[in-house]
Amino acid sequence: MIDFQNVIDTIHHNLKDEVFRGLVANYIPELADIDAQNLGIHLRLLDGQTFATGDWNKKFSIQSVSKVLTLAMALPMYPENLWQRVDVEPSGNPFNHLSLLELENGIPRNPLINAGALVIADILVSLLKNPKEDFLNYVRNVVDDPTIAFNLKVAESERLTGYNNYAAANLLKAYGNLENDVDDVLDFYFHQCAIEMTCEQLSKAFIMFANHGACCLKTNQLSPSQAKRINAIMLTCGFYDEAGEFAFEVGLPGKSGVGGGIVALLPNHFTIAVWSPGLNMKGNSLLGMQALEQFTTMTKLSIF
Amino acid sequence: MIDFQNVIDTIHHNLKDEVFRGLVANYIPELADIDAQNLGIHLRLLDGQTFATGDWNKKFSIQSVSKVLTLAMALPMYPENLWQRVDVEPSGNPFNHLSLLELENGIPRNPLINAGALVIADILVSLLKNPKEDFLNYVRNVVDDPTIAFNLKVAESERLTGYNNYAAANLLKAYGNLENDVDDVLDFYFHQCAIEMTCEQLSKAFIMFANHGACCLKTNQLSPSQAKRINAIMLTCGFYDEAGEFAFEVGLPGKSGVGGGIVALLPNHFTIAVWSPGLNMKGNSLLGMQALEQFTTMTKLSIF
Amino acid sequence: MIDFQNVIDTIHHNLKDEVFRGLVANYIPELADIDAQNLGIHLRLLDGQTFATGDWNKKFSIQSVSKVLTLAMALPMYPENLWQRVDVEPSGNPFNHLSLLELENGIPRNPLINAGALVIADILVSLLKNPKEDFLNYVRNVVDDPTIAFNLKVAESERLTGYNNYAAANLLKAYGNLENDVDDVLDFYFHQCAIEMTCEQLSKAFIMFANHGACCLKTNQLSPSQAKRINAIMLTCGFYDEAGEFAFEVGLPGKSGVGGGIVALLPNHFTIAVWSPGLNMKGNSLLGMQALEQFTTMTKLSIF
Amino acid sequence: MIDFQNVIDTIHHNLKDEVFRGLVANYIPELADIDAQNLGIHLRLLDGQTFATGDWNKKFSIQSVSKVLTLAMALPMYPENLWQRVDVEPSGNPFNHLSLLELENGIPRNPLINAGALVIADILVSLLKNPKEDFLNYVRNVVDDPTIAFNLKVAESERLTGYNNYAAANLLKAYGNLENDVDDVLDFYFHQCAIEMTCEQLSKAFIMFANHGACCLKTNQLSPSQAKRINAIMLTCGFYDEAGEFAFEVGLPGKSGVGGGIVALLPNHFTIAVWSPGLNMKGNSLLGMQALEQFTTMTKLSIF
Repeated sequence: MIDFQNVIDTIHHNLKDEVFRGLVANYIPELADIDAQNLGIHLRLLDGQTFATGDWNKKFSIQSVSKVLTLAMALPMYPENLWQRVDVEPSGNPFNHLSLLELENGIPRNPLINAGALVIADILVSLLKNPKEDFLNYVRNVVDDPTIAFNLKVAESERLTGYNNYAAANLLKAYGNLENDVDDVLDFYFHQCAIEMTCEQLSKAFIMFANHGACCLKTNQLSPSQAKRINAIMLTCGFYDEAGEFAFEVGLPGKSGVGGGIVALLPNHFTIAVWSPGLNMKGNSLLGMQALEQFTTMTKLSIF
Repeated sequence: MIDFQNVIDTIHHNLKDEVFRGLVANYIPELADIDAQNLGIHLRLLDGQTFATGDWNKKFSIQSVSKVLTLAMALPMYPENLWQRVDVEPSGNPFNHLSLLELENGIPRNPLINAGALVIADILVSLLKNPKEDFLNYVRNVVDDPTIAFNLKVAESERLTGYNNYAAANLLKAYGNLENDVDDVLDFYFHQCAIEMTCEQLSKAFIMFANHGACCLKTNQLSPSQAKRINAIMLTCGFYDEAGEFAFEVGLPGKSGVGGGIVALLPNHFTIAVWSPGLNMKGNSLLGMQALEQFTTMTKLSIF
Repeated sequence: MIDFQNVIDTIHHNLKDEVFRGLVANYIPELADIDAQNLGIHLRLLDGQTFATGDWNKKFSIQSVSKVLTLAMALPMYPENLWQRVDVEPSGNPFNHLSLLELENGIPRNPLINAGALVIADILVSLLKNPKEDFLNYVRNVVDDPTIAFNLKVAESERLTGYNNYAAANLLKAYGNLENDVDDVLDFYFHQCAIEMTCEQLSKAFIMFANHGACCLKTNQLSPSQAKRINAIMLTCGFYDEAGEFAFEVGLPGKSGVGGGIVALLPNHFTIAVWSPGLNMKGNSLLGMQALEQFTTMTKLSIF
Repeated sequence: MIDFQNVIDTIHHNLKDEVFRGLVANYIPELADIDAQNLGIHLRLLDGQTFATGDWNKKFSIQSVSKVLTLAMALPMYPENLWQRVDVEPSGNPFNHLSLLELENGIPRNPLINAGALVIADILVSLLKNPKEDFLNYVRNVVDDPTIAFNLKVAESERLTGYNNYAAANLLKAYGNLENDVDDVLDFYFHQCAIEMTCEQLSKAFIMFANHGACCLKTNQLSPSQAKRINAIMLTCGFYDEAGEFAFEVGLPGKSGVGGGIVALLPNHFTIAVWSPGLNMKGNSLLGMQALEQFTTMTKLSIF
């Protein structure tokens, strides 16, 4: 029997005074002002037990972590056609995400790179009556917590500076792989990224992926097969061009965001959310990656 | 002594009944409606003699041909810094113009690809008081014809469908290589492309490049060195990924546009404008290319 | 309790009369002559139970499957430096494996693409006294079967036609990432690919990866951490540019070869080897992929 | 009337004491040992007048300059099919010459990049009885000087270290764009590059390109059209990824080699050969480029 509280306390102790903590994302003021000293871990077993340490109860911007949640919402509503519009292969090259779009006729490599997430956003904008509200309610229902909200300042700052995302959305539009107006899709996208959660809420949000799709939703749950497939995509594509490294060092499906959050999971066993705002060169939380590596090394719990 | 009238009449006769005329650009209604049967040629010697045949006096949309004129206007006003923001090398690969931007940190390969022309447009928007009017007046002065005008319907159609250009401009903005608002730069750009000219006006507009920069402008003339360099760029970059082919088959500096116009020149000798709306697979006027090839073959006049 | 014999018999029954079986590799005569009707499955549980059906006892050329075995042999002997010379990321782009080498200074993306396997071959040629014999003995020991052998005709045919591999090896040499003579490395490489096994032998060879590295070797066993990491690499890189698809559809670490063999495994549970010589467009066994997809669907056994 | 002797003497005076002379190619000992202080210029007018200064009479390795001469020999012998096997477009990207081959199915972008020159070498190996001797005789005849010879040590050193060329040749072979054995083609190629000439001989060798193909050959002369086309290729492709820069700064068709030689020409007027062994970052003679830039600036003689 593993003493999980001891494990995460040990990891927190090992890392909390680390001097080299990476760089906090600074392209918008709301992210730049976050204290790099934050470090939180929240572990949730499928049987309901939870273990937490450090700053597990502070809210942070989930950013790209939201891409898994939009995919989870869209897939049961649009199961036939979604994979016609976005592929499931790793992108490989960090340096040219737009050039891949050009080479591959506007079909993004996978739903977890920006271009792919924009296609998923477009699908939701088409399917939902009030896209932003409906997605927020979906997340609140998944976590069973009505206090979850957008940080509107973050969304607005992204809107004012997100030229790369405007470029990607317009390129998708040029290839006919965006149904709605570019501005509407980006408005939705900047809001989904601006959702704030604590580690505790995030570990709850991802329970469905560890639990064959089952969660507290009454409708639109993932099927076991859909949950399995999203896990596969997280494993192969969840960490930008560091996906192979994460699979190699940690060995769990997961997803990171530039807000410094990472969430990972072992099917049938647990979800774990880690938050430390400093990022490594690839844009993933530096201490978050180390914390998860220590976790799977100490517990020997991984998919491999 | 070459009988130029006979030469161009022969070419017109050779091509006027050609069945395979390429496809007229159809991405906006204003271009799609042009009659593919049009074929005009206008030759202008430096000594003032002119020779014309076919539909040389009908207006057409100059589109990308305008990129040479914005460059000619910007270069004397911004000679030091312009080449810091755009390079002078052929782009080589048609399929990934945006990926080149990504690989090369937002510095377009040359001012005659779209991304490069957007940087030149940005420079003019920064330097000019009333950018669109001032550029239109520049063109009117160069041609000495105040009737030259924008086709506003064409500009508006481009604005509504030019997603690729929005993508390129936003990517340039993301790299810090665009000073002004994306929408302002694109508004200027869609107007510059929507200028209409006849073959006669176009052969006049390019006389300065054949004449060491000298023309009827009172200020802001190109220096001989600047004119020479623009000619070099036209030769190496003027025909998208068919630049080598054009140098090989025709052997003159020139520029084409999707409106079906091509203008080419022999320094110290002549300019020649050809118009036929049908395009080949690379987006250059199919009969226009053939007309110029026949012209340099029959006259033995080329730079090589 | 799953009735594994029934599962694989059902799969065999479902597929054995399939008309569309893909194309047998035909670039060398020895592979082209294989009967496309072959279909074998061999499942081996960690507790020693085995289940087999169809042509499980016929020998076939393991080809790229050998790349996992050379990696397994090299890693314990060269643990410090191996990952300096080859990376662990998916390659993403099928179309330009050599260009990635150029862009990334001669460091192959991972050890399961050809360029990466050539670096591993180079390491073994440096470390082993009699490289080909020593590696063959390693494989014989892992499987505990001294009859396993090279097909020398296959190795020779590859040598005579393997221009792409000569290109890759010379490019690695140009970047200083090959210590030995190009010809020596390729001679080793063509032999490793020319090993022949049955499905039964192949499922035995991969038991170590399902068993935390433990197998019948007396020395040079993988550590649990090394086994875990090779599994991660198989999951993200084992199926060329179809790795994401395989993770998505099957959800097991595995490796395929152009001889039509695929081996996959679930850590702590089983290995499974499938053989059907017809390949899909990506170079993986067409029926083999389908067999494994049916297997994980029917048994619900996958890492996700 | 231009005082050409004074012009080239002035250029020589301007540059001879330049401290920053670039780096002499050092990948083989025979090139590394050349004294960087060498600087020679030889100008040859079509009317037969010649002007020379500095080290115009010392032999150097012509290297890639030879690619124009093999093209000139092959084209009249194989006019129909040559352009099926090699294209005429600038390559654009320096960093991935092999990836372009992969993307474009083994058709090199142009005959002046290594891959293209290897295809031309292959054509000559197929067509000639004694390829190396026959090509050397061709060069001797063009220059009218039987003392021109291979430097066999240079050829041998290239053979021992030319891994990039082996990679390119094998890749061409893999795509079916090489008829002969890789080793035979490379043996020819390394010899053609190892020809030594003086500036005086080089300016003579290129007179045919300035003279509509006419030279002292009795057979296999270029047609005027072929000479014109080779000039076009030199202009767009003669200086690696600095072709646009050379067209822009100098404005003459030409070709450089890593031995530090550059030859350029103005059709109907002159050829000029410059030699200075130090290279700039793009692999072109640093002072050679400056000398030619000064020459066209001072004389106002360029094609533009």
